[in-house]
Amino acid sequence: MLRFLTAGESHGASLIGILDGLPAGLKINKQLIDQDLASRQKGYGRGARMKIEKDKINILSGLRKGKTIGSPLALLIKNRDFKINVLPAIICPRPGHADLSGALKLNTKDMRDVLERASARETAMRVAIGAICRIFLGEFNIASLNHVISIGKVCAHTEGMSFNQIDRAAERSPLSCADKKAQAKMMAEIDKAKTEGDSLGGTFEIIVKNIPSGLGSYAQWDRRLDAKLAAALMSIPAIKGVEIGAGFSGACQRGSEIHDSIFYSREKGFFRNSNNAGGLEGGMTNGEPLVLRCAMKPIATLRQPLPSINIKSKRKTKASVERADVCAVPAAGVVARAMACFCIAQALIEKFAGDSLQELKRNYQGYLRQIRAF
Amino acid sequence: MLRFLTAGESHGASLIGILDGLPAGLKINKQLIDQDLASRQKGYGRGARMKIEKDKINILSGLRKGKTIGSPLALLIKNRDFKINVLPAIICPRPGHADLSGALKLNTKDMRDVLERASARETAMRVAIGAICRIFLGEFNIASLNHVISIGKVCAHTEGMSFNQIDRAAERSPLSCADKKAQAKMMAEIDKAKTEGDSLGGTFEIIVKNIPSGLGSYAQWDRRLDAKLAAALMSIPAIKGVEIGAGFSGACQRGSEIHDSIFYSREKGFFRNSNNAGGLEGGMTNGEPLVLRCAMKPIATLRQPLPSINIKSKRKTKASVERADVCAVPAAGVVARAMACFCIAQALIEKFAGDSLQELKRNYQGYLRQIRAF
Amino acid sequence: MLRFLTAGESHGASLIGILDGLPAGLKINKQLIDQDLASRQKGYGRGARMKIEKDKINILSGLRKGKTIGSPLALLIKNRDFKINVLPAIICPRPGHADLSGALKLNTKDMRDVLERASARETAMRVAIGAICRIFLGEFNIASLNHVISIGKVCAHTEGMSFNQIDRAAERSPLSCADKKAQAKMMAEIDKAKTEGDSLGGTFEIIVKNIPSGLGSYAQWDRRLDAKLAAALMSIPAIKGVEIGAGFSGACQRGSEIHDSIFYSREKGFFRNSNNAGGLEGGMTNGEPLVLRCAMKPIATLRQPLPSINIKSKRKTKASVERADVCAVPAAGVVARAMACFCIAQALIEKFAGDSLQELKRNYQGYLRQIRAF
Amino acid sequence: MLRFLTAGESHGASLIGILDGLPAGLKINKQLIDQDLASRQKGYGRGARMKIEKDKINILSGLRKGKTIGSPLALLIKNRDFKINVLPAIICPRPGHADLSGALKLNTKDMRDVLERASARETAMRVAIGAICRIFLGEFNIASLNHVISIGKVCAHTEGMSFNQIDRAAERSPLSCADKKAQAKMMAEIDKAKTEGDSLGGTFEIIVKNIPSGLGSYAQWDRRLDAKLAAALMSIPAIKGVEIGAGFSGACQRGSEIHDSIFYSREKGFFRNSNNAGGLEGGMTNGEPLVLRCAMKPIATLRQPLPSINIKSKRKTKASVERADVCAVPAAGVVARAMACFCIAQALIEKFAGDSLQELKRNYQGYLRQIRAF
Repeated sequence: MLRFLTAGESHGASLIGILDGLPAGLKINKQLIDQDLASRQKGYGRGARMKIEKDKINILSGLRKGKTIGSPLALLIKNRDFKINVLPAIICPRPGHADLSGALKLNTKDMRDVLERASARETAMRVAIGAICRIFLGEFNIASLNHVISIGKVCAHTEGMSFNQIDRAAERSPLSCADKKAQAKMMAEIDKAKTEGDSLGGTFEIIVKNIPSGLGSYAQWDRRLDAKLAAALMSIPAIKGVEIGAGFSGACQRGSEIHDSIFYSREKGFFRNSNNAGGLEGGMTNGEPLVLRCAMKPIATLRQPLPSINIKSKRKTKASVERADVCAVPAAGVVARAMACFCIAQALIEKFAGDSLQELKRNYQGYLRQIRAF
Repeated sequence: MLRFLTAGESHGASLIGILDGLPAGLKINKQLIDQDLASRQKGYGRGARMKIEKDKINILSGLRKGKTIGSPLALLIKNRDFKINVLPAIICPRPGHADLSGALKLNTKDMRDVLERASARETAMRVAIGAICRIFLGEFNIASLNHVISIGKVCAHTEGMSFNQIDRAAERSPLSCADKKAQAKMMAEIDKAKTEGDSLGGTFEIIVKNIPSGLGSYAQWDRRLDAKLAAALMSIPAIKGVEIGAGFSGACQRGSEIHDSIFYSREKGFFRNSNNAGGLEGGMTNGEPLVLRCAMKPIATLRQPLPSINIKSKRKTKASVERADVCAVPAAGVVARAMACFCIAQALIEKFAGDSLQELKRNYQGYLRQIRAF
Repeated sequence: MLRFLTAGESHGASLIGILDGLPAGLKINKQLIDQDLASRQKGYGRGARMKIEKDKINILSGLRKGKTIGSPLALLIKNRDFKINVLPAIICPRPGHADLSGALKLNTKDMRDVLERASARETAMRVAIGAICRIFLGEFNIASLNHVISIGKVCAHTEGMSFNQIDRAAERSPLSCADKKAQAKMMAEIDKAKTEGDSLGGTFEIIVKNIPSGLGSYAQWDRRLDAKLAAALMSIPAIKGVEIGAGFSGACQRGSEIHDSIFYSREKGFFRNSNNAGGLEGGMTNGEPLVLRCAMKPIATLRQPLPSINIKSKRKTKASVERADVCAVPAAGVVARAMACFCIAQALIEKFAGDSLQELKRNYQGYLRQIRAF
Repeated sequence: MLRFLTAGESHGASLIGILDGLPAGLKINKQLIDQDLASRQKGYGRGARMKIEKDKINILSGLRKGKTIGSPLALLIKNRDFKINVLPAIICPRPGHADLSGALKLNTKDMRDVLERASARETAMRVAIGAICRIFLGEFNIASLNHVISIGKVCAHTEGMSFNQIDRAAERSPLSCADKKAQAKMMAEIDKAKTEGDSLGGTFEIIVKNIPSGLGSYAQWDRRLDAKLAAALMSIPAIKGVEIGAGFSGACQRGSEIHDSIFYSREKGFFRNSNNAGGLEGGMTNGEPLVLRCAMKPIATLRQPLPSINIKSKRKTKASVERADVCAVPAAGVVARAMACFCIAQALIEKFAGDSLQELKRNYQGYLRQIRAF
């Protein structure tokens, strides 16, 4: 059973995570984690905080001589901007944030108690955890990418591009966008929103390939992999929609147009020529790439703030303004890939178990042989 | 902690569920459960099975003199069509179903072992469990509805309709559709698909009102209510997309257009004049109605079946044909409402605890007073 | 992940259980379950209820043609003595039972609402679930027994007896006691207590053999197998103590006397010549037989009832008298073995995973080879 | 839901913990945590490590201005003796430790990979977490103590001493022993064992008072408080037995002797004049003090080591000798109190919920009024 908890506030001393349940014998390259942390911080349209924090991972436990030993990994990212105890109270809740509901829930008149934890700063730790899961998945040749599909009303077009083409183009792009033309328009859109004190949302896509058939389960509702992925992605701040494969657009097509016919060849075994299911049928992986898309609402902190209420005086006012990004869709994509990798790693461990990487691989290979001989 | 497990196969003896964690003292009206079960079975475009099964709930435990006593509820729905042990083997997997991945996973050449449990028949038990949760939520005046928004390419228009208007119109409609004009077109679309041996998907919406602010949490990723709702909805067979509030369409708007400004009046307390957040901010309810939408892919069993492979001979063939619906979007909406009600009941019990309904209500009232006095 | 929930009241319609997480392909012999149910009902000193109920298992789901198919098993035991809605209110709480605390918890003046679920009748379902786990463990040659060690002040002596000797003797004994002399004295003790309107407790032992090294974990407190076993055994009504191996008596010995020295031979691999650890070191199995002992308090319902309070009038009175046993130690031993088998099956599935019995065995065999080649 | 994970190895950089689920508004006095950490390190018979480590807690998150804010607490204890990467391999497993089973499980020939996490050093973090729970329980006047009952064959006698008398005497004692005469003999016993290169175990008792009736539940086996406490205590390294109230000695008494008769007075409400149940009936607290006892086996690392096997050569040898205590029963008692406090805090939060301490107390007070008015 792979599981994790995170802790830490936006302006607290640090972010902390514990990842429990990895097998022994996995080599962890700290640099790969730092790369993912850097990816999360990049992105045209990010705010000043990204210049302050240069996130680096500290692995406090769980490794010996660079390898996992079956004990939990404790992770720490230091906050340079540690000032939670001196920052002023927040009394004008920002629409779109946890501020107001959190204040009522905790019965506090200082919403900083809420927003410090509700902040998306927490997702840096999820990225670190996801990076470790990604290293683990790499042992099974499972590869993943994330790329931005739209920002505001500007859409990228990546039809016909291969996994590798999208991956490389997105990695080079300051907006994780694989379509150069769209990217230029997106940047203009961000500039415009910034000038106007406004913010933008968008959509992005996660693709994960080389996952074997049969991860997840249809046997009980809470064991379905599609359900777990949906929870993991929707748990990311500002995500308001999740779809798998053809998703919403598939709902208006005919059955004969959308279901992925089944073929077989000696070399490939069973395969499909389309992937409208996005790699998931019946709550399980079906051997095709996992394709997940998320909708992110625009950043809720606006430099031209929306109408709000002073929670002490109950008078009309403008919402508080915290330092914020204009657009963080590329960053959210990095977080989403991390969460997807966690879910797949969890499903892989659930299916193949094993206390050492060696044992897990042995079980995995046995299953692959079973499938090939089917 | 409210939780449930279900058991039962499509052509097994019965469907069984255990719902654990309801407080004592809740009066359960069996008829209300049967009504929801009947709602799930209705719907223009349903197949022959719906005529065979007239689901009725049997409550085997957890009640004394018609009320809960704090012990788990065991529920049973008999299958009239009990023949799992005599039905023939399935060897031509249906694209879009669990058949093939399940066969590889279980290493079975008879996919009936898979599809009997992977069948959406299981959702009848979820509806029963959700109906009990709905009765429980009724004690707090929390009301819910589900209605169909689109079938195939035909969309309903319900802009400007109130909760009650939509609710009443959808209940009277054989397609749970609150727009009569659209309904007529949808029925024509279903007729056409049926004639052509094809199937249809669609989208539907769940609305839940009168939920207090502060259910759910931002404090840990797996305690967010948006994440739990997403999992619960995505766990329903054939659901490929979930969105909250403005969802995907909100991702292409500006922050200034989409976030719900905060207002206050003595009578209402804090309130909003819009609900693009769909009642959820920061993983918590914000006092506005919960608005959830799902995309359902077309039924995967086609009377004109898709190309498939005989898993024994590995030869090309057509997929097996099981008895199936042409369109089950209204039924999926009933299931989704049930799952949403379960999630909200769970969140309510998590927030207010209490072993008796009386204690839960006392805690709940204390919180409402706290909010009013805020 | 193997898990179960039970439902049902003592005088309700039936007891129900759902067991989720068994692999596909396990043949279930219903008779073996009924045998365990009968074992739970036997025992010198049992009350009238045991003559009314002749428990038989109904498997409502999860099997096809006698084998598991990876879907949850739903189990049902009918109560012949179904009269929960007509039985009178209980208003004089019995010391030693859940009656009073339950009444305060639920705020009910009729403690039947409490005792119907708090009754040990519920353990019949646990025995059925444990029996299925036992059948599963049998596929790995893991065998278990339970036998009574003491009733009241009479102790059995089984030093020097082998697993098989104890097993056979206990099975033939009406008190599950492997020491015939002690058994005679125990029966006399029970007769005496019965005559005097009193009740008896005792201790019993569970032994499970052929478990491989390495089930469970030391890596996180809640994943230790000793912790899970302790919870499972202490959760049985009337159990007030649990010990592993030498347990309490080991606490007064020296380290040099108690720890089990390690030996090695080509044939056996690593082995011990003593088993004071009871098969568990560091929260994991160590390859030696699991040895668990429990203390059961005397039955709390006395025919000569103890002082109590009428909860309505608050006047002094005698506790209510429900139909009850004089001594149920043998039955508790059967329940404890069932719970132990569940825990070991769970740990086995956690370590070896696999969706089919075939896959699980392949993974298991791979591990055994790994250990042999160590 | 209160939960925690720990991480960290014996000679790693630090021990880390995350405690998730405390309400907002709880003042945390760091000194009280450090006091409990110091208590765990004291004890006549401890080894050299205790002189190296002077554990101090670092609270990295979850507090603002000294109070909880509803977000998870991250805790860190630095290891002065950080050298995990340079310490030599261990190849001669110590009987009584995780060494051998862990090596087989992980398939490693260097058992340091195992023992670094399996070490009882981890329990320092549990003590810190328990101390925070104890501060929380203090808000409800729930008080706890731990004291040593026996070391080796020497037993303390505390019959007739009050909670406060035992508490004060045990706190002043280097062996947490409330009986001065016994303590002197215990010290002599420890000296003797030390001289002989041997080790000692013993038993200790936890008492927790002022817990209201009705925490825990009888409704489902895994929700019983007795089961949770048994798991929490048995999860402590070297604990081989757990008993509640009269425990094993109660198993040989008559029902009429052991069950705690029920009385009532206006001032006290329902009460008992005895507490053989140890405060738990039917898996719930009954308002009387919780009384828990544990058996600890002797320290498994012996200066005169036991026979073992070199896992590389498979030749007979002596077990490895790591730095170790002769007796750590007092320390285990501190850990056990911490775990008991965690369980009770968890049960309290489960029963009374509430996001702020204020709300939790309001719910709690409402329940106390309900009980008083019963």
